[in-house]
Amino acid sequence: MGLVVQKYGGSSVADAEGIKRVAKRIVDAKKNGHQVVVVVSAMGDTTDELIDLAEQVSPIPAGREFDMLLTAGERISMALLAMAIKNLGHEAQSFTGSQAGVITDSVHNKARIIDVTPGRIRTALDEGNIAIVAGFQGVSQDKKDITTLGRGGSDTTAVALAAALDAEVCEIYTDVDGVFTADPRVVKKARKIDWISFEDMLELASSGSKVLLHRCVEYARRYNIPIHVRSSFSGLQGTWVSNEPHSEQGARKVEQAIISGVAHDTSEAKITVVGVPDKPGEAAAIFRTIADNEINIDMVVQNVSAASTGLTDISFTLPKTEGRKAIDALEKTKDAIGFESLRYDDQIAKISLVGAGMKTNPGVTASFFEALSDAGVNIELISTSEIRISVVTRADDVKEAVQAVHTAFGLDSDSDEAVVYGGTGR
Amino acid sequence: MGLVVQKYGGSSVADAEGIKRVAKRIVDAKKNGHQVVVVVSAMGDTTDELIDLAEQVSPIPAGREFDMLLTAGERISMALLAMAIKNLGHEAQSFTGSQAGVITDSVHNKARIIDVTPGRIRTALDEGNIAIVAGFQGVSQDKKDITTLGRGGSDTTAVALAAALDAEVCEIYTDVDGVFTADPRVVKKARKIDWISFEDMLELASSGSKVLLHRCVEYARRYNIPIHVRSSFSGLQGTWVSNEPHSEQGARKVEQAIISGVAHDTSEAKITVVGVPDKPGEAAAIFRTIADNEINIDMVVQNVSAASTGLTDISFTLPKTEGRKAIDALEKTKDAIGFESLRYDDQIAKISLVGAGMKTNPGVTASFFEALSDAGVNIELISTSEIRISVVTRADDVKEAVQAVHTAFGLDSDSDEAVVYGGTGR
Repeated sequence: MGLVVQKYGGSSVADAEGIKRVAKRIVDAKKNGHQVVVVVSAMGDTTDELIDLAEQVSPIPAGREFDMLLTAGERISMALLAMAIKNLGHEAQSFTGSQAGVITDSVHNKARIIDVTPGRIRTALDEGNIAIVAGFQGVSQDKKDITTLGRGGSDTTAVALAAALDAEVCEIYTDVDGVFTADPRVVKKARKIDWISFEDMLELASSGSKVLLHRCVEYARRYNIPIHVRSSFSGLQGTWVSNEPHSEQGARKVEQAIISGVAHDTSEAKITVVGVPDKPGEAAAIFRTIADNEINIDMVVQNVSAASTGLTDISFTLPKTEGRKAIDALEKTKDAIGFESLRYDDQIAKISLVGAGMKTNPGVTASFFEALSDAGVNIELISTSEIRISVVTRADDVKEAVQAVHTAFGLDSDSDEAVVYGGTGR
Repeated sequence: MGLVVQKYGGSSVADAEGIKRVAKRIVDAKKNGHQVVVVVSAMGDTTDELIDLAEQVSPIPAGREFDMLLTAGERISMALLAMAIKNLGHEAQSFTGSQAGVITDSVHNKARIIDVTPGRIRTALDEGNIAIVAGFQGVSQDKKDITTLGRGGSDTTAVALAAALDAEVCEIYTDVDGVFTADPRVVKKARKIDWISFEDMLELASSGSKVLLHRCVEYARRYNIPIHVRSSFSGLQGTWVSNEPHSEQGARKVEQAIISGVAHDTSEAKITVVGVPDKPGEAAAIFRTIADNEINIDMVVQNVSAASTGLTDISFTLPKTEGRKAIDALEKTKDAIGFESLRYDDQIAKISLVGAGMKTNPGVTASFFEALSDAGVNIELISTSEIRISVVTRADDVKEAVQAVHTAFGLDSDSDEAVVYGGTGR
């Protein structure tokens, strides 16, 4: 029995009852002989309430002070959780990100972890305590200012601490039972995945699956920390994410599936730059403009140019939230780059099939397209990686498309059991 | 133009509007050429809400975790205040008690400041910032745990920082215009005191005046830091508390009054131990019992014993909140000590006359008793110090008594201007 890091999201500790329920679960792990480190997010709506206050006093809150403000959220939940555990007769101490040794760079609101020096956590554990650590926050290496890690930051805190403490596993508790073969709100017969490789999980995360964020999985892969995503409401085994299938503690030894799952994403828009002169440097100029405006893009497709005109079209997808900025930036360079026009389309969906098995199963791409075609879904863009195929379709088609692909690849569950599915907190 | 420390209580920063109003006042001080350090309490009801949450998860919240929880309150208010100041175009940085170098002992919930090492504050000031510091909190010297300073802790933080930074003045902003010659809710003609000595202020504070707590005044006296208590709602000069009358910046040079003011306190109860054998060690046994139960007592009176019985009565006053505990503790020792019975009376008021001038004006005590007698107020206990006379009366008599004494010593104001009076936050 070694050290376990458990992470609980905001929905798991939304109120006093939730905190007491989580405290019981933590104490159970301790009773089972584990050393337990718990990473906790802010309670339910706390963060939104703090953001609302900030907007009332300042239209554009400063990064350093905004981080100072937001980190009050975890301070509240972690102290309450430690109290609830002590009330059950076990020793617990809470630690801020800074006290836990979470050292970051100085980029406020989206800092990156540089190092973790968990000396105080180690001491607390050695003294028999359960250690409760504030997720989402750290302290900057140079200025010793409080920082926050941005979206999904608490998961990253948990994985980083698990790595620094050489934990057996990082358990991410959330309000769903694990990672599913598709979004159960869309596909009724979506199955919970028992085990998935880091690589497939990374592709699912970047293709729209919201249970784990890319950044956290990337960190876990780098330090080879097994993640166990599971529900804080049920006692069920969830999904193991690791290099190799997990065979201990009752989890079934599972074979790697050809296909891990189908992800979809309706948060992106598509921009098409129409009538771009097909000569060296044109595409570069377009994407330099986008990059200079710090806009992240996803898929990029350029068609072969029409021989008659010497002009080509370049399409790319990007978060809808960045759409306005990108259009404005490109409009300004229209004459310099010499394209004809811009088309903006935010009624798209991206559907992705993910699975390492497709490397050695050449029929996967064909089956994917056939399934979409049979469902009457038109494909607008295609992009592939070694273990993923993504297409862009009309947003209206997303449900039929995901359902059809899920069935075609034999992912449908036999059971009709209802599953609950939601997003994670930070 | 030197350094000014300003402290704002919870009622001054109760909401976004309050924070913006306070930010303007701070910026004004900066524009006048001062270096400004601001100590801020938690917003309005935040602390009560956090205590309520704590009680929901644990009936007796642990000290360390309770402090961690409560300190979230100042973290929110200080970050918002810094944002509001930056929004007015001035540089500001907020600092936790720990970051500001407020080093305390390890007694959670009522820690004492051991040292203040404000290196980061000094640097922030030298870089042109307004420094915002969380009141009420520090970090323990040995364990590096977050601590809170207990009641009135934010005022103490402000005075301690003012001392460590060698400030010109510590301005305590509150919801009243200053310290008054009596509680204006009781005495309509109470006058705002322009200047009062540390010694008189200490006596007023321990006699029921709630504007400044004893502990904060004691700290200011030790380091000779002038305090200026004033309203955050008006722009008026308030009350200066210092060694010598203040003559700068428009404040009138004032002569020391014979009497500074009349304080009253209805928060105490009286316990009389009846029929105590008048022999050595009896009183000691009673008060050892009280002390062992960590009960603070105030006035103590023992009458001459009746020659016929060899028995005496011992009376003392203590906070009503400690009454039950004291009675229970004494009952247990009844046989050992050998007293006859206990009487408990919580319908009392303590009325105190404070002023260094009474040292050299022998008629003060007589005038005080005459005023009470003329008002038909009966005196039950008397206790005096060099610069204070206190009596215990019936609680029902408190208004007439305070009013009569206030008038008798010429403290009534000529103006009928209404004044607002209330308690301070923490």
